[in-house]
Amino acid sequence: MKLYSYYRSSAAYRVRIALNLKGVHYTVVPINLLKGEQSEQTYLAINSQGLVPALEMDDGRILYQSLAILEYLEIAYPNPGLLPADIFDAALVRSWMNLIACDIHPINNLRILNHLASEYKISDLQKTQWIHRWIGDGFGALEKQIAAAPFAFGSQPTFADVCIVPQIYNALRFKLDMTPFPKLMQVYQACNSLGAFVDASPDQQSDSV
Amino acid sequence: MKLYSYYRSSAAYRVRIALNLKGVHYTVVPINLLKGEQSEQTYLAINSQGLVPALEMDDGRILYQSLAILEYLEIAYPNPGLLPADIFDAALVRSWMNLIACDIHPINNLRILNHLASEYKISDLQKTQWIHRWIGDGFGALEKQIAAAPFAFGSQPTFADVCIVPQIYNALRFKLDMTPFPKLMQVYQACNSLGAFVDASPDQQSDSV
Repeated sequence: MKLYSYYRSSAAYRVRIALNLKGVHYTVVPINLLKGEQSEQTYLAINSQGLVPALEMDDGRILYQSLAILEYLEIAYPNPGLLPADIFDAALVRSWMNLIACDIHPINNLRILNHLASEYKISDLQKTQWIHRWIGDGFGALEKQIAAAPFAFGSQPTFADVCIVPQIYNALRFKLDMTPFPKLMQVYQACNSLGAFVDASPDQQSDSV
Repeated sequence: MKLYSYYRSSAAYRVRIALNLKGVHYTVVPINLLKGEQSEQTYLAINSQGLVPALEMDDGRILYQSLAILEYLEIAYPNPGLLPADIFDAALVRSWMNLIACDIHPINNLRILNHLASEYKISDLQKTQWIHRWIGDGFGALEKQIAAAPFAFGSQPTFADVCIVPQIYNALRFKLDMTPFPKLMQVYQACNSLGAFVDASPDQQSDSV
């Protein structure tokens, strides 16, 4: 499999973690978002939405949208399972996954920040405030709900952790004060004691600069 | 079951469609977003994120985040199935679902528009331009990919249609020119020939004003 990835993309980071946890072999094809490679015809032919990640399977078929890829991997490579067996518990984990993937991450995505800067001329400080606002709102709700025992749902990583870790990495990068979110930080530390998470981190990617 | 809903919320509209398609009985509890009822303590006790929808099951347990609710319903009420049986096809449908639910809808959500107005003093025209931009980008990618045969994936509705219809309803409300998206409009018309979609529409809700 080939994963079209950018080292700092939260969405690509999620898929890297899941592939590592499930022990699936893949090679990374870096797409440099800062150079705009995601909008070049070569990449648009792979993913017409022009976003990373995309996962090209060995038969050439291509999947995109990180959450759709995660759900695919869960069915194609069921061990270890990254969703609880009970359907209510699975829904809970998916609600945490979606809280991050719908209500935090896309709002702070590069294309939105670029648009805010070009259309409304927002300053760097305002950009940071924008980022902090939406992460803070989402983390505030998550902190009340997750178990941190030591992972978000319990004793094993789930899709919740797969989404939480990249979002915290991003929050720390933008210097969000994480003091109000001790359970989330406990999850972050538990995850980062596992090789699957460490190996997927932006710092470990070949396109990290 | 009780569905905490607001008539114009795209996310609540998705869940209403899925419940109707699957023939699940539910009562609607309206939460007036314009009056801020989603941020009152009564509702925050139901969903600490302060967003609709939330689905309260008969045993009192509560699910939230529309996509997590959809996935729950697919397992709990498998007939009719709203995901293709083939796992690659299911991933494709989920990628369309996520394209809307992650990359279009949350960016145009009420809390974001309110923030843009209060922080950056954007005009009504700029607000409309913002909405058109993100719907247009997403619809442009979707239009290239969906089948419209006559539903997004094929001859039966899937989660893709469940997400597409509320997003088109929203686009039309904000007067986006849909001429560049004939396949999407074909899907919209096919869906709105079905009672499950019509009955879920904002205009048919008791809290419609």
